[in-house]
Amino acid sequence: MKLMDIFARMKGDLNVIESELAKSVTSDHALLTETSMHLLKAGGKRIRPVIVLLSGKFGHYNLDVMKWVAVPLELIHMASLVHDDVIDDAETRRGQLTVKSKWDNRIAMYTGDFIHGKALTVATQLENPRIHQILSKAMVEMCIGEMEQIRDFFNTEQSIRRYLLRIRRKTALLIAISCQLGAIAAEVGEKEANQLYRYGYNVGMTFQIRDDLLDLCGTAKQIGKPPGSDIRQGNMTLPVLLALQEPAIREPLLREIDRIRESDGTADTSEAIRLIRGSRGIQQSEQLAERYIKKALAALEGLPDIPAKKSLRDIAHFVNKRNY
Amino acid sequence: MKLMDIFARMKGDLNVIESELAKSVTSDHALLTETSMHLLKAGGKRIRPVIVLLSGKFGHYNLDVMKWVAVPLELIHMASLVHDDVIDDAETRRGQLTVKSKWDNRIAMYTGDFIHGKALTVATQLENPRIHQILSKAMVEMCIGEMEQIRDFFNTEQSIRRYLLRIRRKTALLIAISCQLGAIAAEVGEKEANQLYRYGYNVGMTFQIRDDLLDLCGTAKQIGKPPGSDIRQGNMTLPVLLALQEPAIREPLLREIDRIRESDGTADTSEAIRLIRGSRGIQQSEQLAERYIKKALAALEGLPDIPAKKSLRDIAHFVNKRNY
Repeated sequence: MKLMDIFARMKGDLNVIESELAKSVTSDHALLTETSMHLLKAGGKRIRPVIVLLSGKFGHYNLDVMKWVAVPLELIHMASLVHDDVIDDAETRRGQLTVKSKWDNRIAMYTGDFIHGKALTVATQLENPRIHQILSKAMVEMCIGEMEQIRDFFNTEQSIRRYLLRIRRKTALLIAISCQLGAIAAEVGEKEANQLYRYGYNVGMTFQIRDDLLDLCGTAKQIGKPPGSDIRQGNMTLPVLLALQEPAIREPLLREIDRIRESDGTADTSEAIRLIRGSRGIQQSEQLAERYIKKALAALEGLPDIPAKKSLRDIAHFVNKRNY
Repeated sequence: MKLMDIFARMKGDLNVIESELAKSVTSDHALLTETSMHLLKAGGKRIRPVIVLLSGKFGHYNLDVMKWVAVPLELIHMASLVHDDVIDDAETRRGQLTVKSKWDNRIAMYTGDFIHGKALTVATQLENPRIHQILSKAMVEMCIGEMEQIRDFFNTEQSIRRYLLRIRRKTALLIAISCQLGAIAAEVGEKEANQLYRYGYNVGMTFQIRDDLLDLCGTAKQIGKPPGSDIRQGNMTLPVLLALQEPAIREPLLREIDRIRESDGTADTSEAIRLIRGSRGIQQSEQLAERYIKKALAALEGLPDIPAKKSLRDIAHFVNKRNY
């Protein structure tokens, strides 16, 4: 698999990031260190640090500088996951117990706050005010995205545009600024930094659409948790909204969604999933994911032909891969 | 009352801060704006902005600069309150419904995250990297303080030192950096800035000890919520720990605390409160509060005799006032 090759080639630098991640969440408070390390060890692809480092390759790449943006971006992502698990009442993530289930909601909330704070503390190693502006704004936008999701739970009348705006804030923005901050840390020229930002934004959009598809089309093993958890929670994702536009599907699907809502998340979602899978919503979502990936690849055009460019292309294809 | 005079004298500047606070939490997300404004309107003494502004008076005071630190400090305080209310399962604060009770825990959590993010965004208006370092480190320390409190719930064997370290992180630090950042924003000399920091730290320690006393000695009206909520939650405050050192009180008080713990916070706390009030713990706590205030006042010595110095002194006396 190509992604493994990218990781293999960057192994030395990624090991440094990994140990900096561990160092950054180690405090003299044993429990916080334990919960944070539990999160760290639960894994994740570290796609954000990888993207930071690859973006830095277009400028003056110095790992001792790059790490001060690569680490905060992964930490912000981790903090958002631990808070999401509280909201979603999730028992497992990636097949591992969540902090809220291994400990409790209170501990998960403060672990998230702690990691957020640590992310910003690490970033202050670089005395570039733009970096702090971009990071803190992204944190705010991510919160707004999460709140928009809560607001729109079970809202079957929301527009596709509203969905896209939400995932932009919730997911795409953090990947976009991973590119941007990687570029800034390596003093990449402004034009190229903007191209990298656009690449990251479009990859992020595809990433979330694919993730939403996975929750409907994957198996429990592929997803790491039972399928249909989005719809159970009320999160109306792109395939659902598109399926609802289909006259033959709309009425039975609305009835299923109503039933799920009324059951307070305990109802069986298999009939709703069957309806959505049988609609054109799946294929149309895949097409939209495809469109974003094309834009991501187009954004890379004109950048110097260094190995990192090929790696970013490979990552785009990987993110757009059917993972179900 | 002297404090009112200080506020009256600073009214114009505090109005600017108040409107900047409102502006800072106004986003294009209606619900987040609503929850944040609910928090803002629930009041609070704005003691942190007042202290920021007064500290700035010892240097080149420019409100257009000062506001970029005064606002974040109040926001960080607000964010910590909204997350505390989730943890404490508090229905009211200062006699007003909390965000978690008016809306729900999820919304309270993201409101806190949002306000945290906004605090840092506002601070990035000043391009001084030290400010971001101090702010983000304080956020981390505050989290550790909150986690230490959870860890030590119903721990009747903890030392007084452990209590003091906890309230230092939980409360005193934010007031200390209010002084420090006010001084930095006004380019106060390093020696004076350190003196102001020490003033803030000691005022903060007294502030928390007095707050802990209030929860045991105040009426529901004075506290804004039912008395004994600390002990009900398992928070072993200074008067409790000191009362436990008294041979005649120790055994009956331990039995009461056990009963409260086993009742999962539903037991009547009046007997425990009666025992503590009858112990020397109250007076000894008051003496310690007194000692911190003396240190706070001593820290001001040698600073130029401007009106702000007298105001800081008055604030110290106000914080140390018996509020029950």
